Amino acid sequence: MLERWVIGVDIGGTNLVVGVVPCAGGRPLAITSRPTRSDRGADAAVDDIGTMADAVVAEALASHGGSRARVIGVGVGCPGPLDLARGRIIETPNLGWRDYPIRDRVASRLGLPATLDNDANCATYGEWWQGAARGAQSVVGVTIGTGVGGGLILDGRLVRGASGGAGELGHTTIDIDGRLCGCGNRGCLEAYASGTSIAARAREGIEAGASSEITRLVDGDLSRITALTVYDALLLGDLHAREVLLETAELLGAGLASVINLFNPEVIVIMGGVTKAGEHLLSPLRSAVRRRAFASAVDACRIVPGELDGAAGVVGAAGVFTALMEAAA
Amino acid sequence: MLERWVIGVDIGGTNLVVGVVPCAGGRPLAITSRPTRSDRGADAAVDDIGTMADAVVAEALASHGGSRARVIGVGVGCPGPLDLARGRIIETPNLGWRDYPIRDRVASRLGLPATLDNDANCATYGEWWQGAARGAQSVVGVTIGTGVGGGLILDGRLVRGASGGAGELGHTTIDIDGRLCGCGNRGCLEAYASGTSIAARAREGIEAGASSEITRLVDGDLSRITALTVYDALLLGDLHAREVLLETAELLGAGLASVINLFNPEVIVIMGGVTKAGEHLLSPLRSAVRRRAFASAVDACRIVPGELDGAAGVVGAAGVFTALMEAAA
Repeated sequence: MLERWVIGVDIGGTNLVVGVVPCAGGRPLAITSRPTRSDRGADAAVDDIGTMADAVVAEALASHGGSRARVIGVGVGCPGPLDLARGRIIETPNLGWRDYPIRDRVASRLGLPATLDNDANCATYGEWWQGAARGAQSVVGVTIGTGVGGGLILDGRLVRGASGGAGELGHTTIDIDGRLCGCGNRGCLEAYASGTSIAARAREGIEAGASSEITRLVDGDLSRITALTVYDALLLGDLHAREVLLETAELLGAGLASVINLFNPEVIVIMGGVTKAGEHLLSPLRSAVRRRAFASAVDACRIVPGELDGAAGVVGAAGVFTALMEAAA
Repeated sequence: MLERWVIGVDIGGTNLVVGVVPCAGGRPLAITSRPTRSDRGADAAVDDIGTMADAVVAEALASHGGSRARVIGVGVGCPGPLDLARGRIIETPNLGWRDYPIRDRVASRLGLPATLDNDANCATYGEWWQGAARGAQSVVGVTIGTGVGGGLILDGRLVRGASGGAGELGHTTIDIDGRLCGCGNRGCLEAYASGTSIAARAREGIEAGASSEITRLVDGDLSRITALTVYDALLLGDLHAREVLLETAELLGAGLASVINLFNPEVIVIMGGVTKAGEHLLSPLRSAVRRRAFASAVDACRIVPGELDGAAGVVGAAGVFTALMEAAA
C-alpha cells in the first residue's frame, strides 16, 4: 500500500502555511504559504486553506504518484484561546476572530477529518516528532514571533491542561509591576521578548539618543523597525542592536529559568524569527539561564534552536492528527 | 490477610514527622513529630526516624493488631536538590546536609525497602492521593513554610523532570531585578511569599513606623516575629497584619497566575502554615490570580487549602512508596 499522508495547516498572525506530511513522519513533501490577511475574516482564510491544500496535494501526487485517497486527514494549528473539545476558536487577539468553528469548517472545505490544536503546541510537537527535540521525554517549546508562545511535552504527549490552555509561556510574569501586556496582565515575558517587543525596545533606544545602523536600514522611519531589522544591524556589527539582543537574552533567560526550575525539561527548543540571531542570542541566553536556575536542572537541559524553520507548525499539526488517530485506533 | 501498611517520613527544616499509613490509603493510623535539629547532622536524624518509626508502628499494632510484618516499606520525603535515582541528598540549604545517602540509611535503620522523593512532591502527592485534590487530572501543590516548595501531578503521576528537580515553584522569577533569593537568583517567589519573607515584610513595615498589635505579641522584640505572629495579629483585627497578608496574596497571585497560564491545572492546593489565614489569604489570592491569568484557565482551576494539615508529607511519602511498588509489580 502507498504511504499515507496528512495535511498540516499552520494559521499564523502573518502567514498561512499548508503542507503535505507523511503519516510516518518526515519533512513536508510539498509546502506553500501566503499572507493571512486576517481582516478578511475567518471564512476567507478557510477558503485560502482549501485552495492551498489542493495545490500542495497536487504537487505531492505529481512527484510521488497515487491518488488523493492517500490523504487521510488534516491537522490544524491556530492561535488561541481555543476550545479543543469542540474544535472552536474562543478568541484570537492577533487575528481578531472570535467564537469560530475552525476545525469543522476546514474539515468540510477539504472533505477530510480534522483535528485542532494551539499553534505553539503544534510547533513544539513538530520539533519533538521530527526536529531538534526528537527522543526527549520532556520538552518545552518557545515560539517567538508577534507574541511569545509555548508548548510542553511530557513522555511524548502534549500537556494540554484542564481547559486546553497549557503552555502559555509568554504570559508568565517576569516583572510584577512591569510593562502592560496585551493579555491585561503586567510584566509578562511576551511584553519584553516577543519580536514586537524587541523592535519596540530597539526603537525606544534610538529615540533616547542611541546611534545605530538600524536608523539607516529603515531610511530614518523608526516605525518600520522590526526584529528582523535588529538582526540585520547586528550582522553589520551594530552596538545598539547587540545591546538590545543581550537585553533580550537576559529577559528571556529569566522566563526560561522559571520554566527550568518548574518543569526541569530535557530540551528547550527556541523557534521563530529570533533563531536568525543564532549564537548571538543563544550564548548569552544560556549564560542568563545558568545564573538564575538550579545548576542540576540547567545541566540536564539543552537549549537549542528549532530545526524545521517555518515548517514546524505544519509538521506538528500533521503529527497531532496522526497521534490522535493512533490513540483512537 | 491483614491490611498492609507503609511508614511515611517527612523531613522538614523544623520538624521530623513519621507516621503509619495503610497501603490502600487513608489518614495515618499513628503519627508523631519532633524537632529536626539538623545541626546534629543527618545520622542523628536517621536515628530519630528509627525511634519514631518503632513508636508509631507499636501504637498502630496496639490499636489494630497483627505483627510488624504488616509494614512493607518506608517512603521518605526530604528537601532537595536530591539525586532520586541514587536516593541521595545532593544538598539541602535549609538543613545543611550534603551528599548523603538518606534513602539507604533509613532503609537499613528500619530494615525495610525505602523510596525517596522531594518533600513538596510528597505533600502534593498526599493531597492528590487522600486530600483536597483527590480525583484531579492535573494538580499544582504549593507548600509555604520556611521556603516555598511545589509539586506537579499529571494524570495521577508526579512530574519529576529530567533530573528529578521539577516543581520548584518557589524559584520562579516574579520580579527580574527584585530581592536576592537564597538560591542566588533575584526576585524568586520564595523571596516574597515564604513564611520567612512574610515575617520579614511585617517587621520591615513596623521598623518603618507602622503601628501594629504584632509589636505587643512579641513583647517589642521584632526579631521574634514569625508568619504565625502575623496571623495571630490578623485575627485580632490588626491593620498592618492585614496589609502584609494582602501584599502576600498579590505576590503569590503573580506566581500562581504564571503557573496557571503555563500548566492550566485543575486544582492548586495551598499547604503549610499560611493556610491558617484561611479566606483572609485565599480570597484576595483568587482575585489577584483572576486579574492576571487567562479567564478560561482561571475558570478551570480550583484554588483550595490542603486537607491533611501537617500529615500531607507523611501520607504522600507513603503514597509514593506504594505507587512505585505497584508500578514495579
